[in-house]
Amino acid sequence: MNAPVNINSLEVGFDIPAKPGMDEKDIQTPCLVLDLDALERNITKMGDYAKAHGMRHRVHGKMHKSVDVAKLQEKLGGAIGVCCQKVSEAEVFARGGIKDILVSNQVRDPVKIDRLAQLPKLGARTIVCVDDIDNVADLSKAAQKHGTEIEVFVEIDCGAGRCGVTTTEDVVKIAKAVDAAPGLKFSGIQAYQGAMQHLDKYEDRKAKLDIAIVMVKDAVEGLKRAGLEPELVSGGGTGSYYFESNSGVYNELQCGSYAFMDADYGRILDKDGKRIDKGEWENAFFILTQVMSHVKPDKAICDAGLKAQSVDSGLPVIYGRDDVKYIKCSDEHGVIEDPKGVLKVGEKLKLVPGHCDPTANVHDWYVGVRGGKVECVWPVSARGRAY
Amino acid sequence: MNAPVNINSLEVGFDIPAKPGMDEKDIQTPCLVLDLDALERNITKMGDYAKAHGMRHRVHGKMHKSVDVAKLQEKLGGAIGVCCQKVSEAEVFARGGIKDILVSNQVRDPVKIDRLAQLPKLGARTIVCVDDIDNVADLSKAAQKHGTEIEVFVEIDCGAGRCGVTTTEDVVKIAKAVDAAPGLKFSGIQAYQGAMQHLDKYEDRKAKLDIAIVMVKDAVEGLKRAGLEPELVSGGGTGSYYFESNSGVYNELQCGSYAFMDADYGRILDKDGKRIDKGEWENAFFILTQVMSHVKPDKAICDAGLKAQSVDSGLPVIYGRDDVKYIKCSDEHGVIEDPKGVLKVGEKLKLVPGHCDPTANVHDWYVGVRGGKVECVWPVSARGRAY
Repeated sequence: MNAPVNINSLEVGFDIPAKPGMDEKDIQTPCLVLDLDALERNITKMGDYAKAHGMRHRVHGKMHKSVDVAKLQEKLGGAIGVCCQKVSEAEVFARGGIKDILVSNQVRDPVKIDRLAQLPKLGARTIVCVDDIDNVADLSKAAQKHGTEIEVFVEIDCGAGRCGVTTTEDVVKIAKAVDAAPGLKFSGIQAYQGAMQHLDKYEDRKAKLDIAIVMVKDAVEGLKRAGLEPELVSGGGTGSYYFESNSGVYNELQCGSYAFMDADYGRILDKDGKRIDKGEWENAFFILTQVMSHVKPDKAICDAGLKAQSVDSGLPVIYGRDDVKYIKCSDEHGVIEDPKGVLKVGEKLKLVPGHCDPTANVHDWYVGVRGGKVECVWPVSARGRAY
Repeated sequence: MNAPVNINSLEVGFDIPAKPGMDEKDIQTPCLVLDLDALERNITKMGDYAKAHGMRHRVHGKMHKSVDVAKLQEKLGGAIGVCCQKVSEAEVFARGGIKDILVSNQVRDPVKIDRLAQLPKLGARTIVCVDDIDNVADLSKAAQKHGTEIEVFVEIDCGAGRCGVTTTEDVVKIAKAVDAAPGLKFSGIQAYQGAMQHLDKYEDRKAKLDIAIVMVKDAVEGLKRAGLEPELVSGGGTGSYYFESNSGVYNELQCGSYAFMDADYGRILDKDGKRIDKGEWENAFFILTQVMSHVKPDKAICDAGLKAQSVDSGLPVIYGRDDVKYIKCSDEHGVIEDPKGVLKVGEKLKLVPGHCDPTANVHDWYVGVRGGKVECVWPVSARGRAY
């Protein structure tokens, strides 16, 4: 476990919502709470799975944006490093001591390319995705300027419909250009199918991933014929990692949400038709909120609204309660249906947010709890690092 | 205009997205951009309106969370101070020099009440809302402990369905308790109808506000009979301020979004059936984004996704363009429909976000531009101050 942040100069409740050692009940709301036992079990479980299947696990740092969580994933889950989506996030992880970093995204802006090329100076193996041959010369120039090496994954769009090429011909063409460019090294394939991760049914997810695997196998064959066998074939998320792990072609996973879980992911079903938050993974990530008005007998108002979470994937769920329900979210308030009037002003509730990634991104701190006590307060190190 | 932040020690693109003096085209994306001319015109226009109607304008600081914007509203718009929703926001505004602050919300947590009671020591008139008589003793105790005075608005739920009492009897009961409590002063009524602000039709909004005005008038009469005539009757938003201003009972406005505008508010219609972002207010607030992948000819991928905005009130609109459309938002990416393939990688676009308040809350900086140049970089001072 990493040392907690130095909070000597900070006032609880103003700059940070809690202090290590305090009772869980005294944490200021709304804030993010991590159940450290559950978090550690999730991390260990996925690490064991990856190891048993001979897969490297490059954990997705864009989910939590936390150097502390990434280091816990290295320590307990055997993670080999992180992927993230922005150069600014990669800078935070590199400065925090992560040694193998993939920016699983395109980097096209000249200033960002220049910053990317400096990451190896911080001691980090640096990999970036390319889906356009025009990008190769710019990356090469920057690497040469800084005397560094940028490694490149060619990105395949295997169903997400965003970035990435769609033919083996294009994969090979870009890989050859990278291979020929000074300062660059062709290292593999990025093939993350982001669009199927949240499909409810296991069989629907499998059908989508089967298509991705066919594309990736064809690309790997094409690259081998061109003398450019990829060192790494990377992809896989919390809704698909078993498919990539058993594909015979992927050798690196990129899971993120498994560590925290959220309400939207939790609803998807495993191969036995069971919700993945009822066995496969535990809820380790919560918004702690407090009832701050209850004038209407059947409606409680809590202090966690849109400034404390993202509702893009649905409203939060009140953890461990079926007698009360979060039904409406405005800027600063949540409206909770309380038909029996059981909630009291001041009472605290744990919300499982709809979507963990953008919810983490609105907070500055994770409050880690264990056994009813605050054990650590970790910064959301790369929060707001979108540019 | 306030001095820009000291950025001597910061690298552009890492800690801040721009530097004063640079060309607008060099701003790092995604980030928030303020069109300073449009912002100043909006602020001046609302200030002139309030003055002409004899209304105090207490601008809503929870919208922008910026001391710099609040001070511009004082300077150009005659704002008398701010309202905000959290004690932590009030602390930021008080430290930034705002002298009249209403926490337009309930404060029930003992730690937060203790912090609230210390705000007057920072030189700020401090007002808070109460909707529960049980809150009065706690506020009184804290004010006495710190030797300060907390002023109180009794909150009426005049249609928003969140906090607030719903009968004149309750208003008078709480006001009497406040009046009798050492350290507290009964100063007025909070009656903000938040639920009608975004109704498209002017007549529909008017019908809702008419109900609110009847409730508020009745409460004021009741208070007068009890010898507790309220000094301030406060409420009103961007979709209703003309109703409160002409009500004969409100004397203070609390508008926020008028200064920035957003896509969801912009769609509502004025009394002539015209969108309010086509005459009444100007778009002054944008997410600057950049195309970073365009492998598919009819689809451009930009770098502003859920980490750069809140989509609770709908997707952003691409400003000034009808040939391209933002159609999908994932964590880090926006998918832009580009049927004619007119966009180029590296091209920058201005997005009008669906909802300004929670979008501002995910960013650290406002980049103020005028005449193609960056004029200032302002911190989103109270960003993340939700607890």
